[in-house]
Amino acid sequence: MTMRNIETTLRALLRSADRPALESLASQLAPHDWAALLPRLDPAEVELLLQMVPDSALPAVLGALDPGDAAAHLRETAPSAAAGLLAALAPDDAADIIARLPAAEIEPLLVRLDADDAAEIRDLMAFAPDSAGGLMTPAFVAVAPDLRAGQAIAALQRVADEAETVAYVYVLDRDDHLLGVLSLHRLVLTHPDTPVRQLMVTDPVRIRADADQESAARLLNDHGLIALPVVDDENHLLGIITQDDIADVVEAEATEDIERLGGSQPLEMPYLRAGVGRLVRRRVIWLLLLFAAEAYTGTVLRHFEDEITQVVALSFFIPLLIGTGGNVGSQVTTTLVRALAVGEVRPRDVRAVLLKESAVGLALGAIMAVVALGRSQLLNVGIDVGLVIALTILAICVWSAAVAAVLPLALRSLRIDPAIVSAPLITTLVDGTGLVIYFTIAKYLLHL
Amino acid sequence: MTMRNIETTLRALLRSADRPALESLASQLAPHDWAALLPRLDPAEVELLLQMVPDSALPAVLGALDPGDAAAHLRETAPSAAAGLLAALAPDDAADIIARLPAAEIEPLLVRLDADDAAEIRDLMAFAPDSAGGLMTPAFVAVAPDLRAGQAIAALQRVADEAETVAYVYVLDRDDHLLGVLSLHRLVLTHPDTPVRQLMVTDPVRIRADADQESAARLLNDHGLIALPVVDDENHLLGIITQDDIADVVEAEATEDIERLGGSQPLEMPYLRAGVGRLVRRRVIWLLLLFAAEAYTGTVLRHFEDEITQVVALSFFIPLLIGTGGNVGSQVTTTLVRALAVGEVRPRDVRAVLLKESAVGLALGAIMAVVALGRSQLLNVGIDVGLVIALTILAICVWSAAVAAVLPLALRSLRIDPAIVSAPLITTLVDGTGLVIYFTIAKYLLHL
Repeated sequence: MTMRNIETTLRALLRSADRPALESLASQLAPHDWAALLPRLDPAEVELLLQMVPDSALPAVLGALDPGDAAAHLRETAPSAAAGLLAALAPDDAADIIARLPAAEIEPLLVRLDADDAAEIRDLMAFAPDSAGGLMTPAFVAVAPDLRAGQAIAALQRVADEAETVAYVYVLDRDDHLLGVLSLHRLVLTHPDTPVRQLMVTDPVRIRADADQESAARLLNDHGLIALPVVDDENHLLGIITQDDIADVVEAEATEDIERLGGSQPLEMPYLRAGVGRLVRRRVIWLLLLFAAEAYTGTVLRHFEDEITQVVALSFFIPLLIGTGGNVGSQVTTTLVRALAVGEVRPRDVRAVLLKESAVGLALGAIMAVVALGRSQLLNVGIDVGLVIALTILAICVWSAAVAAVLPLALRSLRIDPAIVSAPLITTLVDGTGLVIYFTIAKYLLHL
Repeated sequence: MTMRNIETTLRALLRSADRPALESLASQLAPHDWAALLPRLDPAEVELLLQMVPDSALPAVLGALDPGDAAAHLRETAPSAAAGLLAALAPDDAADIIARLPAAEIEPLLVRLDADDAAEIRDLMAFAPDSAGGLMTPAFVAVAPDLRAGQAIAALQRVADEAETVAYVYVLDRDDHLLGVLSLHRLVLTHPDTPVRQLMVTDPVRIRADADQESAARLLNDHGLIALPVVDDENHLLGIITQDDIADVVEAEATEDIERLGGSQPLEMPYLRAGVGRLVRRRVIWLLLLFAAEAYTGTVLRHFEDEITQVVALSFFIPLLIGTGGNVGSQVTTTLVRALAVGEVRPRDVRAVLLKESAVGLALGAIMAVVALGRSQLLNVGIDVGLVIALTILAICVWSAAVAAVLPLALRSLRIDPAIVSAPLITTLVDGTGLVIYFTIAKYLLHL
């Protein structure tokens, strides 16, 4: 069955409340299937699913669900059953869900868990969800440095079921300080008597628990690691971050940047699950801010009321001129915001970027000026107005490119997310100034 | 030394042409360091680096370089030296670079290589660079199904140095058909006499070589795999795709989408390395298309010349009204393009999306109408013009939201990349129609 068929079947079973068939379908689905399915369901369908899914599949469903939704479900479950569900989840998933519960409801749940499980979850909850600590799992494999390779493999066999990955084995001293790392394949491909200390890579790549999750993603990917050790400020090993945690982070961060660049606050949930109210709230703030900024254009135009009355034709070109300025700005700013996000550009490159973008703006402006001159003559507005249009578009292209080049880099050096310089924002910023340029050129050239 | 210090030092050494110091720096850098450094250098610095870097570090530099730039360097190198460099690279990197050479120069290089290496590279070159086949490496570990676990580990030890990953061992029949896969940790954690056939997962997740690289990335991440087997249409194992190949693909695809959403063609190279000419070429096409589409606004405005002449105040609100329409459209389209890209929304969801976005547009429009009415009265334009403005902004918000909701989904079902519905494009599309709405409402309400 393809994923699309599974989705259709699941929807049909939910509608017809066919529990036995749903049970049989659920038994065939792996956690990653649920992860692909759940974002496609609307809130009512998720509700139904949580009621109907067999207990055996419930942990897989909860782990794939948005932590907030999973927490809401736990609140409607008897504490003993809720504790059972939490125990069946990976500790990092459990901690993410518990962190969304009201403070008063957390302890009654944790006390019902096995003491070790509860302690792991408590430790994980101490870290912000978007930090390296919030992303890590404590399910790593650790050995002492004086073990031999054969013994290390035997140790591995005892814990392999609980570990998130056995690709790497971490070497810790008596006080849990991280001494080194060795890969399973190194361990396997060597003589069983070799001491672990000789095999390990000392001073391995690691990350502090309070570092942000994007740094962890970059480190893991840049070094091509399967797992990244997370340490505290005294180099105690606290947990590991694995590739599958990171893939979600990279995708979520790109989604947030894209949504910001489109001029709204990030949704922070799958689109189909976001209700009308949430969409309105996420968008209205920027819409109002942009409206307030754009309202300035009305003041500019009223200031030039006499000029417009004398040459009404000037008004024909307002959308075209400010539109082109906005387009140039949007091209520059989205390219730069992305280049900043992936580390290709840094704030100190500002001189090189400004020079390059001004040159590009000049070239594009010259091309657009010729085209605009042609277009103006098609509207029969006279060569003098045509020259005003051409000169204005040249000036606006250079101006927009320069503003859009400097703004994201300046914001980044002020430690503000440059992705707030969305296409709508840069368009709005250059609209008002574009009109000032337009009517100033018109005033002088047309002697108004 | 931090990456930033390394970069500064490298730049200084290149400028001062200090070969011994550069040699010592290069000897400390790993391939992933070069991958982080090279996108930050401009073309002249890359040129200098290629001349000065010691031969031992050259393969690492070439592998981290853009394949086109690496090919350009190979063309300036004597064929025997070039062949030596290719042999030192991973076969998938070598194939990417050779594919950028003029056809006539490929064979003279390949014949200088070891016959096996040349055959591997030839096989890889048969696939499009953005297909699963173009991404895979043939450096996997394979065993026969009748081997025992202990023998499989011994086989592994012989080839471990050449393999890209030993996390998975693939089980092939005599004719190289993929029968199953087993993880190294399964192999290690079992009795040495167990036959491989009993340990392997049959019918493993795999991908066809001609599938696109985004599908491969999604499959690998959704299933949390370290490597994904690539097969031909008869299930022969051709190669594997590993996590580090995929991280680059996910990042590059997000970059392309973001650049498209900003209204330009993707740069397809690091920003600082793209010259003014390339930036102009990548942007001018969309700028001209958008200009042509926006030029229609001039025709609309000339059509309403009488109305503008009678009530010049109407022109004050043109940028504000069409700007708000563009902002709403941009919010909707970027959210949906991203939701389509990550698979949260599909074309068949069009009814649900249209209904939801129309409701959101109505709510946002109502809020903006109140604000716009207030703003119009601050400009002293009379309550009748104020009502026109308020009604227009309500209509434009709903209209923009609806157009921006349908367009990306329609394009996707026509198999056109929905990311071409950039913020600038949707702004341009709703500008002209917004003006028609505006002046039609004005004409009736103000009896013009």
